[in-house]
Amino acid sequence: MTDHQDNRMADSADESDLSDGETEPGAERGLSHVSADGEVSMVDIGAKEISERRAVAVGEISLTETAIEAVRADRLAKGDVLATARIAATQAAKHTWETIPMCHQIPITSIDTDVEIEQRSIVLSVTVGTTGKTGCEMEALQGVTTGLNTIWDMVKAVEKDSDGQYPATEISGVRVVRKEKLVVD
Amino acid sequence: MTDHQDNRMADSADESDLSDGETEPGAERGLSHVSADGEVSMVDIGAKEISERRAVAVGEISLTETAIEAVRADRLAKGDVLATARIAATQAAKHTWETIPMCHQIPITSIDTDVEIEQRSIVLSVTVGTTGKTGCEMEALQGVTTGLNTIWDMVKAVEKDSDGQYPATEISGVRVVRKEKLVVD
Amino acid sequence: MTDHQDNRMADSADESDLSDGETEPGAERGLSHVSADGEVSMVDIGAKEISERRAVAVGEISLTETAIEAVRADRLAKGDVLATARIAATQAAKHTWETIPMCHQIPITSIDTDVEIEQRSIVLSVTVGTTGKTGCEMEALQGVTTGLNTIWDMVKAVEKDSDGQYPATEISGVRVVRKEKLVVD
Amino acid sequence: MTDHQDNRMADSADESDLSDGETEPGAERGLSHVSADGEVSMVDIGAKEISERRAVAVGEISLTETAIEAVRADRLAKGDVLATARIAATQAAKHTWETIPMCHQIPITSIDTDVEIEQRSIVLSVTVGTTGKTGCEMEALQGVTTGLNTIWDMVKAVEKDSDGQYPATEISGVRVVRKEKLVVD
Amino acid sequence: MTDHQDNRMADSADESDLSDGETEPGAERGLSHVSADGEVSMVDIGAKEISERRAVAVGEISLTETAIEAVRADRLAKGDVLATARIAATQAAKHTWETIPMCHQIPITSIDTDVEIEQRSIVLSVTVGTTGKTGCEMEALQGVTTGLNTIWDMVKAVEKDSDGQYPATEISGVRVVRKEKLVVD
Amino acid sequence: MTDHQDNRMADSADESDLSDGETEPGAERGLSHVSADGEVSMVDIGAKEISERRAVAVGEISLTETAIEAVRADRLAKGDVLATARIAATQAAKHTWETIPMCHQIPITSIDTDVEIEQRSIVLSVTVGTTGKTGCEMEALQGVTTGLNTIWDMVKAVEKDSDGQYPATEISGVRVVRKEKLVVD
Repeated sequence: MTDHQDNRMADSADESDLSDGETEPGAERGLSHVSADGEVSMVDIGAKEISERRAVAVGEISLTETAIEAVRADRLAKGDVLATARIAATQAAKHTWETIPMCHQIPITSIDTDVEIEQRSIVLSVTVGTTGKTGCEMEALQGVTTGLNTIWDMVKAVEKDSDGQYPATEISGVRVVRKEKLVVD
Repeated sequence: MTDHQDNRMADSADESDLSDGETEPGAERGLSHVSADGEVSMVDIGAKEISERRAVAVGEISLTETAIEAVRADRLAKGDVLATARIAATQAAKHTWETIPMCHQIPITSIDTDVEIEQRSIVLSVTVGTTGKTGCEMEALQGVTTGLNTIWDMVKAVEKDSDGQYPATEISGVRVVRKEKLVVD
Repeated sequence: MTDHQDNRMADSADESDLSDGETEPGAERGLSHVSADGEVSMVDIGAKEISERRAVAVGEISLTETAIEAVRADRLAKGDVLATARIAATQAAKHTWETIPMCHQIPITSIDTDVEIEQRSIVLSVTVGTTGKTGCEMEALQGVTTGLNTIWDMVKAVEKDSDGQYPATEISGVRVVRKEKLVVD
Repeated sequence: MTDHQDNRMADSADESDLSDGETEPGAERGLSHVSADGEVSMVDIGAKEISERRAVAVGEISLTETAIEAVRADRLAKGDVLATARIAATQAAKHTWETIPMCHQIPITSIDTDVEIEQRSIVLSVTVGTTGKTGCEMEALQGVTTGLNTIWDMVKAVEKDSDGQYPATEISGVRVVRKEKLVVD
Repeated sequence: MTDHQDNRMADSADESDLSDGETEPGAERGLSHVSADGEVSMVDIGAKEISERRAVAVGEISLTETAIEAVRADRLAKGDVLATARIAATQAAKHTWETIPMCHQIPITSIDTDVEIEQRSIVLSVTVGTTGKTGCEMEALQGVTTGLNTIWDMVKAVEKDSDGQYPATEISGVRVVRKEKLVVD
Repeated sequence: MTDHQDNRMADSADESDLSDGETEPGAERGLSHVSADGEVSMVDIGAKEISERRAVAVGEISLTETAIEAVRADRLAKGDVLATARIAATQAAKHTWETIPMCHQIPITSIDTDVEIEQRSIVLSVTVGTTGKTGCEMEALQGVTTGLNTIWDMVKAVEKDSDGQYPATEISGVRVVRKEKLVVD
């Protein structure tokens, strides 16, 4: 007597189709990562065209004016808070293949972080470039959320209230601004 | 002729004070992680009381009804999407010490993930427990953002529009719900 | 007066030959990973044909009927034990390049896990696909052994006897079922 | 309308009970790691006694006589195959908290690897010591399976048949030989 | 017929003795990490006194005046090169337990990096604090060498000569300046 | 009112130019890793020639004669100290993309470690081969410094003086011996 279960990491080729935004043939089956369909697992990806891909993700963290001033002053002095956040974002993007269980490891060719300090928030955007058969929006998203969490960690001392809580601190607006794909001749 | 720079990972004892929500003595100096003040670096933490700490963080991801239905149906069938997100959140919480550059590694005693599927979003909360001298809110936050990114990754196939973009997908409301500290006799 | 020692990570090109199953030219030298022969270390791998490779490994864990029933019931309810094992297997396969000291990092294109619950054991098979110049049997094996250890970890509470020992628990039959190689035109 | 799911990493205190071999109070609920019961998550572990724990795991890999001879000769010459396996086993034991999703990170105080070369197999045993509130049998098991996979990787060149397959290679007999616990005064 | 090999990760207690600078009892046996003596592996470390330890390591990288000027100007503008080096040093210190195969994972309580820009070199010192039973000089050393390599990586573009070589670049003077140990009452 | 900061991981194509030793077009902008110039971030690397690259780095550790004798004797007996250092060097080279924040992950095709025992020092050289668009000197350097730190860790017991200090131990002469690049037809 035997039960059976099956799942898989979606094949690159499959991912490639999806990240092309094509309407998925077997869309009724729902989520490729947990699909029981094994047929994609040996698809010939050698015949797939190589694409240059780029994804831009953005998000923001709301902070007290005290923290914003501290970051601004600190940034003008040494820039360490933002440098730490940008470096953490860059490393998180590179680690996405192990952080997000079903992600493939892709050849990342560039990571670009951009920080804007508003009056009550800091906006972080991360642009990731890759050349291959799968998209890189998850890499950009992991870069954004980890970079914003790093800012949170760096301003903890001045952001907490007298009870040690964070009533004003919140991460929001995390989304993929744009995905692009260029076929390489 | 010599220039000089100095920074440090805030000492546990210092962190302990901060996570107690005490008003920081040298609050005017701003951010402990980038402080140039070296005096805390050899503070005797052996004399500090041991505390049992707990932090709860929450966040949500807005999805299309199509994706929500797919997750709901999938969850009832196998639960893989949510199981994957919960496992990713648990592992991300454990990895916070290396993901957030200035975090200490702390002895995590428990991680609890909770998922609620709303009509147009999924809410993830992560509770982390530790016993030691520093708080664990960053661990809970990394768990939440990584778990939500994992849901995003798992529903990519059905969430993208015909242009391969994510107009409806957004992570928001990421905050620390509660930090608690119990002194152990 | 000088002593000298030399070892190397076998070159991809060398690995490619080996994973082709060719009888090794310098077979008398034994183990490529510890070979003192440096000549392969700059071999031109650009001229090597690209191959699509696949490896299937399998193994099983013997459990008490109590644990099997718990897994079966749990699986029907939420499937978390098996989902956790499959996710752990997938991540372990991706991490093989750092877990097995002399392994190369290869572009994994697909990972497929399959679980069968027998009356007194659970059988896990992992299929790994890659496109490149080295095989992926080690990735499949790491997936199998880590997935089986994860099942062990998940059933500890019900598998231990009253003395906290595991008289009935054993992992066995871990082997490579099949390696395949397709030359890409 | 809301669905709800809940799971957790078993609390250290809970693990402590389990690794003590106590019959579990809520044994009918089955697997602590996937339990929906939240009551243990804030249990006071500060009041738990500290224990010195030790776990010994063992396993073996069957090899061709050609490979055994190569390992034996190589070992006498440089010992690299076995040294590599022992180092891989040691590192894998230390990494168990991230490899096995629901494992806690524990303070490992010692890791001991022991290798015996039989006529047609190599036997590896790993002993892990820790002081804390959870057992270390998973650490010992990860050490054994990773060490044996490393031996497999190191002898690939001479172990494969002319078709590139491994008809004679198999890992078996992976089990926990003994778990011990000493209460520290 | 059986061969036998044995090695171990030195027990914390043993390490504690060594880092106390005590002349080692079995000093004739040489290197504890590769010792075949198993008696220390279950020594009761619960009875050992807890110590607060600190280690300071230093090293320098020689650079062209062009690179020094670029770093100095860059530092005044944004400080990113040195911030990146300091962050890399901090993370490398935290990762020492997995980078140096036989190191224990220790509770690091503080990491302090200090950078001095000389006319033809940059000097990096890293101070690591821990509370426990083993020293932290390896953590400080990994911080120094990784931080200096990071500076090298950041100035590659201006440091290479027209042939793409590094005739002027060299890391030297990497040593442990001071180890300290305070017994906690 | 908005401040703005920008940095990026230098694009592979940019790195490729640099590692070719070409005089950098915009050399006046200084350090590519911290450049604010975004134009390279979407450069078409598909049109870049593939190159086979090799980098050789070397360094040495000064030790007491007692430690040298212990290593020499140990090496002849089992070779564990040097095997451990070589394995640590190999793994560190593979991990460079995550250790050095702004490094790309590159397809490493071979790693070769070479150890020479002099009368008062041990010299370690690491040769790394890759095929791609960026150089691998950082991988070779991380291999050398981590391998030398590992030797330090392995001889701690016999290298320390009666005060637990290391007056005679020093790592020096860490440099890139040669970088080579072959264009593949």
